[in-house]
Amino acid sequence: MCKRVAVIGAGSWGSILANILVMNGNKVCIWSRRKEQVDELNKQHTNHHYLSDFTYDQRLNASNDMSETLADATTVLFAVPTKAMRSVAADAAVILKEKKLKPIIVHASKGLELGTHKRISEIISEEIPEENREGIVALSGPSHAEEVAKKDITLVTAASENSTAAKNVQRLFMNNYFRVYTNTDIVGVELGAAFKNIIALGAGALHGLGYGDDAKAALMTRGLAEIARLGISLGADPLTFIGLSGVGDLIVTCTSIHSRNWRAGDQLGQGETLKNVVANMGMVIEGLSTTKAAYELAAQKKIEMPITTAIYQVLYEEKDIKQAISDLMQREGRSE
Amino acid sequence: MCKRVAVIGAGSWGSILANILVMNGNKVCIWSRRKEQVDELNKQHTNHHYLSDFTYDQRLNASNDMSETLADATTVLFAVPTKAMRSVAADAAVILKEKKLKPIIVHASKGLELGTHKRISEIISEEIPEENREGIVALSGPSHAEEVAKKDITLVTAASENSTAAKNVQRLFMNNYFRVYTNTDIVGVELGAAFKNIIALGAGALHGLGYGDDAKAALMTRGLAEIARLGISLGADPLTFIGLSGVGDLIVTCTSIHSRNWRAGDQLGQGETLKNVVANMGMVIEGLSTTKAAYELAAQKKIEMPITTAIYQVLYEEKDIKQAISDLMQREGRSE
Repeated sequence: MCKRVAVIGAGSWGSILANILVMNGNKVCIWSRRKEQVDELNKQHTNHHYLSDFTYDQRLNASNDMSETLADATTVLFAVPTKAMRSVAADAAVILKEKKLKPIIVHASKGLELGTHKRISEIISEEIPEENREGIVALSGPSHAEEVAKKDITLVTAASENSTAAKNVQRLFMNNYFRVYTNTDIVGVELGAAFKNIIALGAGALHGLGYGDDAKAALMTRGLAEIARLGISLGADPLTFIGLSGVGDLIVTCTSIHSRNWRAGDQLGQGETLKNVVANMGMVIEGLSTTKAAYELAAQKKIEMPITTAIYQVLYEEKDIKQAISDLMQREGRSE
Repeated sequence: MCKRVAVIGAGSWGSILANILVMNGNKVCIWSRRKEQVDELNKQHTNHHYLSDFTYDQRLNASNDMSETLADATTVLFAVPTKAMRSVAADAAVILKEKKLKPIIVHASKGLELGTHKRISEIISEEIPEENREGIVALSGPSHAEEVAKKDITLVTAASENSTAAKNVQRLFMNNYFRVYTNTDIVGVELGAAFKNIIALGAGALHGLGYGDDAKAALMTRGLAEIARLGISLGADPLTFIGLSGVGDLIVTCTSIHSRNWRAGDQLGQGETLKNVVANMGMVIEGLSTTKAAYELAAQKKIEMPITTAIYQVLYEEKDIKQAISDLMQREGRSE
């Protein structure tokens, strides 16, 4: 059955998810603030800054008018960087209220708000009133837009306290290469998705410094343990960390060349300055601010997070990365 | 303090562990059945079939006389293929009894006995009487001999019901690049180490068939879940599966070119016959028999193991690998 879906955010991930929804038979409008990007999507059916070699389905409509984009939407997917989420959600809320809409809200972002340390679904629930939403669903898992674009098989999780909403999102996105599982632990799914970027920075740094596969696997394992400890202290289900949005996303982010956070760590390990790394990437590196948020949360909750602490010291206290990683990898032997 | 250590088995892993022990200041003798390998180790200090470019410490002694090797040993490390373990342990037992020795027994093998489905420490405990051993310790974790040879940092677990023995083994092996943690769940450590090779065959097959990183991460995640289910039903602690010998070893085995099981799966995925894959490898591919053992155990315990089943069907029932993997990756969406 054809649904009307609005996609807010036309980066690589938002745009490829929009394309899946079109190909699954839905009527989709995607919003971007930038007029030239909207024109490119509508006329050339490309989005070269984000997915340089990909051609989108011609039925995908783009708009830079959020009101037009949201018109009649029964589902709204937010796919914007974490730091833009609150203001974009607030803008959408005004329109949803005005149009008396009550769509399912989905988001596909991976981070925590700086300062407040809030999860994406918390930001959305604060900005969009309950009468204008039918559940909030986090769509997350080991996934790179570049691979989904090639129709490589990808498995993700649709997580929500509202299991009906999660199942609706599952049906909406599911096809023969994009496989959707459901999960009720949105807290764990969002925290795993955010925190894994810290470990990806570390895994990249190991690579840049010349460490091997054994060291990387060890860092990922100890990293999973520490992000799970923090996540559990914040209300996550421990099992979520061994699911798709936990260890699955950790693995893909720490081992795929498509991961921006891994690449950023790799460049830092090779001796590049943080400023240059950020400038070179040209896209948001969510792990940088997530490291700060996790470091502050760990201090509050008194959770030991040696990897997060090491990355934090490199990013925000100018600790030498070679020394930081060496200290980390040679900590005293103990029981697991 | 210098210890006398006997290492039984001079493959890539046994020989590099022996080299660590020598460099840590111990007096080490390594046993191999093959006279020409012993001569090569003693004269050229190389072991070219296993670690082609590596030169061993000149203080490492090799012998093809097991009695000479075990003389005065306070620790015995077994590093032989699973299928040789019972007969080698039985041979050692005769000598230990004769010499009235009671060493700590360590093993570094990863598999289950065909037919009996027994773990390595179970085989050892059946073959070496209690009066001739001071605890049995499994040394396991994300580790490739090739990386340890380069002094890349590696973190492993020394697991034993006897925590004093585990701590002694930790002290024996620990140095600035080989980092040893202890663990009391030897059941979980041995099962994780064995079962992960099944998932590595699957991850290799995905690669050989042309699937991408998203699919690989998903398979590893679902694989971890199914081997944990089976392991828990056999008495393992669930937490062990998110430790170094669980997810850590799974990651390194599924993502490193050094993994034989991954390479075997990759070749199968590319259409090579099983017979040729085995012939080409020239070293034991433990995952082949472990798949059979796990498949039979899962049937006994009524545990659902879709990945293990798919690999089993390819290896032992001539199911087409492309079809098997496609069926596996497109199973119906459900909750995680």
